[in-house]
Amino acid sequence: MNSFGTLFRIQLFGESHGEAIGVVIDGIPAGLPLSAEDFQKDLNRRKGGSLGTTPRVEEEQLEFLSGLFNGKTNGNPLAIVVKNRNIISSDYDLHCQIPRPGHADLTSNVKHCGFQDYRGGGHHSGRVTLALVLAGVVAKKILAPIVIDTEIIHIGGENPWNQKLKEAIEEGDSLGGLIECRIRKLSAGIGEPFFNSMESMLSHIIFSIPGIRGIEFGDGFRATEMKGSEHNDPIVSADGTTSRNGAGGINGGISNGNEIIFRTAVKPTASIAKEQESFNFKTEKNEKFNIGGRHDACFALRTPVVIEAAAAIALADLLLQASQV
Amino acid sequence: MNSFGTLFRIQLFGESHGEAIGVVIDGIPAGLPLSAEDFQKDLNRRKGGSLGTTPRVEEEQLEFLSGLFNGKTNGNPLAIVVKNRNIISSDYDLHCQIPRPGHADLTSNVKHCGFQDYRGGGHHSGRVTLALVLAGVVAKKILAPIVIDTEIIHIGGENPWNQKLKEAIEEGDSLGGLIECRIRKLSAGIGEPFFNSMESMLSHIIFSIPGIRGIEFGDGFRATEMKGSEHNDPIVSADGTTSRNGAGGINGGISNGNEIIFRTAVKPTASIAKEQESFNFKTEKNEKFNIGGRHDACFALRTPVVIEAAAAIALADLLLQASQV
Amino acid sequence: MNSFGTLFRIQLFGESHGEAIGVVIDGIPAGLPLSAEDFQKDLNRRKGGSLGTTPRVEEEQLEFLSGLFNGKTNGNPLAIVVKNRNIISSDYDLHCQIPRPGHADLTSNVKHCGFQDYRGGGHHSGRVTLALVLAGVVAKKILAPIVIDTEIIHIGGENPWNQKLKEAIEEGDSLGGLIECRIRKLSAGIGEPFFNSMESMLSHIIFSIPGIRGIEFGDGFRATEMKGSEHNDPIVSADGTTSRNGAGGINGGISNGNEIIFRTAVKPTASIAKEQESFNFKTEKNEKFNIGGRHDACFALRTPVVIEAAAAIALADLLLQASQV
Amino acid sequence: MNSFGTLFRIQLFGESHGEAIGVVIDGIPAGLPLSAEDFQKDLNRRKGGSLGTTPRVEEEQLEFLSGLFNGKTNGNPLAIVVKNRNIISSDYDLHCQIPRPGHADLTSNVKHCGFQDYRGGGHHSGRVTLALVLAGVVAKKILAPIVIDTEIIHIGGENPWNQKLKEAIEEGDSLGGLIECRIRKLSAGIGEPFFNSMESMLSHIIFSIPGIRGIEFGDGFRATEMKGSEHNDPIVSADGTTSRNGAGGINGGISNGNEIIFRTAVKPTASIAKEQESFNFKTEKNEKFNIGGRHDACFALRTPVVIEAAAAIALADLLLQASQV
Repeated sequence: MNSFGTLFRIQLFGESHGEAIGVVIDGIPAGLPLSAEDFQKDLNRRKGGSLGTTPRVEEEQLEFLSGLFNGKTNGNPLAIVVKNRNIISSDYDLHCQIPRPGHADLTSNVKHCGFQDYRGGGHHSGRVTLALVLAGVVAKKILAPIVIDTEIIHIGGENPWNQKLKEAIEEGDSLGGLIECRIRKLSAGIGEPFFNSMESMLSHIIFSIPGIRGIEFGDGFRATEMKGSEHNDPIVSADGTTSRNGAGGINGGISNGNEIIFRTAVKPTASIAKEQESFNFKTEKNEKFNIGGRHDACFALRTPVVIEAAAAIALADLLLQASQV
Repeated sequence: MNSFGTLFRIQLFGESHGEAIGVVIDGIPAGLPLSAEDFQKDLNRRKGGSLGTTPRVEEEQLEFLSGLFNGKTNGNPLAIVVKNRNIISSDYDLHCQIPRPGHADLTSNVKHCGFQDYRGGGHHSGRVTLALVLAGVVAKKILAPIVIDTEIIHIGGENPWNQKLKEAIEEGDSLGGLIECRIRKLSAGIGEPFFNSMESMLSHIIFSIPGIRGIEFGDGFRATEMKGSEHNDPIVSADGTTSRNGAGGINGGISNGNEIIFRTAVKPTASIAKEQESFNFKTEKNEKFNIGGRHDACFALRTPVVIEAAAAIALADLLLQASQV
Repeated sequence: MNSFGTLFRIQLFGESHGEAIGVVIDGIPAGLPLSAEDFQKDLNRRKGGSLGTTPRVEEEQLEFLSGLFNGKTNGNPLAIVVKNRNIISSDYDLHCQIPRPGHADLTSNVKHCGFQDYRGGGHHSGRVTLALVLAGVVAKKILAPIVIDTEIIHIGGENPWNQKLKEAIEEGDSLGGLIECRIRKLSAGIGEPFFNSMESMLSHIIFSIPGIRGIEFGDGFRATEMKGSEHNDPIVSADGTTSRNGAGGINGGISNGNEIIFRTAVKPTASIAKEQESFNFKTEKNEKFNIGGRHDACFALRTPVVIEAAAAIALADLLLQASQV
Repeated sequence: MNSFGTLFRIQLFGESHGEAIGVVIDGIPAGLPLSAEDFQKDLNRRKGGSLGTTPRVEEEQLEFLSGLFNGKTNGNPLAIVVKNRNIISSDYDLHCQIPRPGHADLTSNVKHCGFQDYRGGGHHSGRVTLALVLAGVVAKKILAPIVIDTEIIHIGGENPWNQKLKEAIEEGDSLGGLIECRIRKLSAGIGEPFFNSMESMLSHIIFSIPGIRGIEFGDGFRATEMKGSEHNDPIVSADGTTSRNGAGGINGGISNGNEIIFRTAVKPTASIAKEQESFNFKTEKNEKFNIGGRHDACFALRTPVVIEAAAAIALADLLLQASQV
């Protein structure tokens, strides 16, 4: 489904080449100051335009349809809509016939019996993450003074990655990347065992972002090669501070007061200019073909703000649940 | 919360050293043949006893309290209870005072204001995964003929791991491991975008299992260093078969008909015989101490069946959702 | 919360004098033909304009933001927005100070700490039922050939009620009414015991409609004065037909194949022209005052289509749940 | 489904003539003192034995399987089980063939494809309300000092109803009744518009109780014949007190600080000794038949404590939601 959360709940809608992308956010405490300017910074971070990102740069005009009164949230659902503009749909007609490798063309066709909006990936487009970013801005306001930071660890395996990116672009190819997220000033005791553990909620929403291949907390996959005496985090003071942070700030699904740390694996952009092979369902043959349209050579460059938003949404919901009674 | 699922829903309960562990399963189709024997194989797989696993081997006596009639499910909630027996609680009194590194002693104390059942990890104990395995057996029956297989890829970094395990046991230390899960015969079209994507639901429930540090699908973290032309899976026939499987059988959160593949990072057991350091909240000093009790040197050895169960539960729920109307 | 449903799920938003009223509908099967014309009939039925209804007649211009492709639902969330136009807000400033009897002025002020949009009842306005009617149109399409009919049984206690209505209007007063709803061609077996019984789901959504005071099924409150031998419905044929219908077509929370019948008590409009008394929170005195603005003398006249919509929404969700596997 | 609630959540299980009836309660705040004695009073109130109630009097032996530690709730799910004893099943074999009028025999057979536990109504039995009463006791502890009182207004239309009851018993017939519930000391501001209004949540759970035909709040159905000037409740003081209570203490779905008042219509017991008619699915003919077994002539006499429990459960959940952040 297209909603997430128990007390802080978001409902997304929109297709890449449809009328609009939007989100309805329910459960926002009343009285939170909120204006269009609050969204600008994160919208800019998500925008394409720089090297390796899509030349489709939309002027995102936010329409607030409900939930605000005199510049503050009013306790009712906040609906925000962004109309799609800069649309060239003719690029996409082919993909009904030849589903693109690495895309949802085939699977959404099966799921929706051929009625899906196939233009630009439709509801599966990375454009839908715009709605996540909008909700994330609101979530961050609720979370303050908790801070969420994201950092690109590497792109295509390189820490200074500009050269590699240029080469990939020249080859008509794409790159993936690794992104780290750190959450500071979150007090201990947040997270709902058993099924709504901190890791469960974060991974749930992170894997909703298109193109994610993995997530790990603290020592992550390295923990599989460590001994318990190495991986355990000794508690060194009464506030729960540990001398290392292999657990990523979480024990038993509950925050322990140290930094929450997780890393997300972002796949290389599926849409590449380079010639590819797929099955043509009309001719019933394997065929070589080229994808048109405008694409990021590396959407991982634009993903940090989306991961931040997703983390903020999950945290806002867990925080609201924790303050019950 | 302690429930999971939309149409196939499980509610867990129980503490390690309390009266019982149990599960209520709601949404099982009526008419499914089910008996105690159906559970035996998976219960045996989960049991300790072999090298590196806990000597606490319980005779798991299943009590079916509801939901069965004449040997078949009757469409109402199935409640299964397993009484705890073989309990030695005195081992654990100390951990209120000195929370064990890598355990939920401190975080559950904060969350539950000191009222938690601290004996043996209480509700955070790996023993609670017994309830998952029970629900998993029922889920697998619903899924048939879909097959879920798990395999230990390595323990502590070693494929033949017996020698390394013996050394860790001798040192009073512990090891982690990497487990791969493959799901075959799942048709294309299963998974609910946006938020209930296949990866979201699987990761959500997998991270409910205590001691998981990471999950990756298909190429996983390696995808971050690949080019799009390498990572994309060319579709080679009309049934959606791809010539490689870097996506782990999922596109846009929806199964594509190829094998679902994911790997789970299991941390080394937190309870080690070796001396450790932690903060003593009574003396208000850092202290060295030893953990008593009986523990797995490597609970990753017992985790495959739990991962299978978790995957089966998530899949059963998604399948039931997919067959709507 | 402002969402309803498990598989067919609606999320409402909007305030009476805000930018817009809208609804996002998730879980609509793909391929359902849908256009603006489909909504016209029910929108007209909900519209004011005739004797006893509000002179505020909006031209409801529907904007479809997502979920439609080539005139058919595409399996993704359908978002429909109606902008508010004909707004005169100055009427309402007083009610912060003197909360109107029978309105949510005081309770929403308490709940939202003074940040609520108090203009025209805000999110509590009957105008929000517009979103229900929109979702109801879609639900009815899913339900076809099931038919839902509503009938006004009486207004202010009178079957021919025009004279009584004129008198109430002349007195600056208002009337309530009783509305009956009948659902035909619903097969037996729909409804989810225990908590999601047919009556539970219907009453849940019916009581979401502002101004409802009661609901009864079949014989309803009269059943309290009947004997079992009178109230029981004898089954007279193999298809489950009963010779009477005191159960309102439901046994054990599950439809029995006979007509579903329920009646809803609608209170008289709270906003009356007549002088009233309330507490003035500024002067801290009881005061007599008059309500301005434009109001229905009897909104029960416009409620049948809203009840129909609500019933259709609950039924669509239960039907989708029933066809699982 | 068999669960209810967002933050205070209960999951029921059990069949009338199965092994046990039970409930798992999730979301109980940690530290609540709780013992078997706390349940005794309400269990006694629910018990049969007096004139007009079933002679099947079970000794309800409570087993607490989890969630308690040192006499207090520990923040994890509380599981309570009551084994069924005093069972005579042979009475019920006939009803597969001839479904009893007013029972779920036929509808559960359709829903569960013939696999339902038909003995004594199975999961549809009034015995399952035992689980509601158990959860209600816990809910009331959370609600304190809020008080919930129920009163029988009439049985079969008579305020002193003993004579009428005796006559009905002699005739082998049954009676229904009307029950009023009043909730005091509930502060203003509780209830979640739009869909989780106070009335929606209360009616949802009340209609889960078997045999309920109607519910009305405040003036209820009488409001349909009143004028606005009569039905509106004038606010007379700064604490929101009103001079009358036609709204039943609720405006816009939110409590207004006055008493919550609602009345519930309970149907006459369906199982009567008197000869009845139904369709015999084996002989495919209408037949006269008699129901054996032990039954209440008027289960409305035992329903007040069940209504109280249901109301307490809904209120506990709404209260926990209201104290978010």
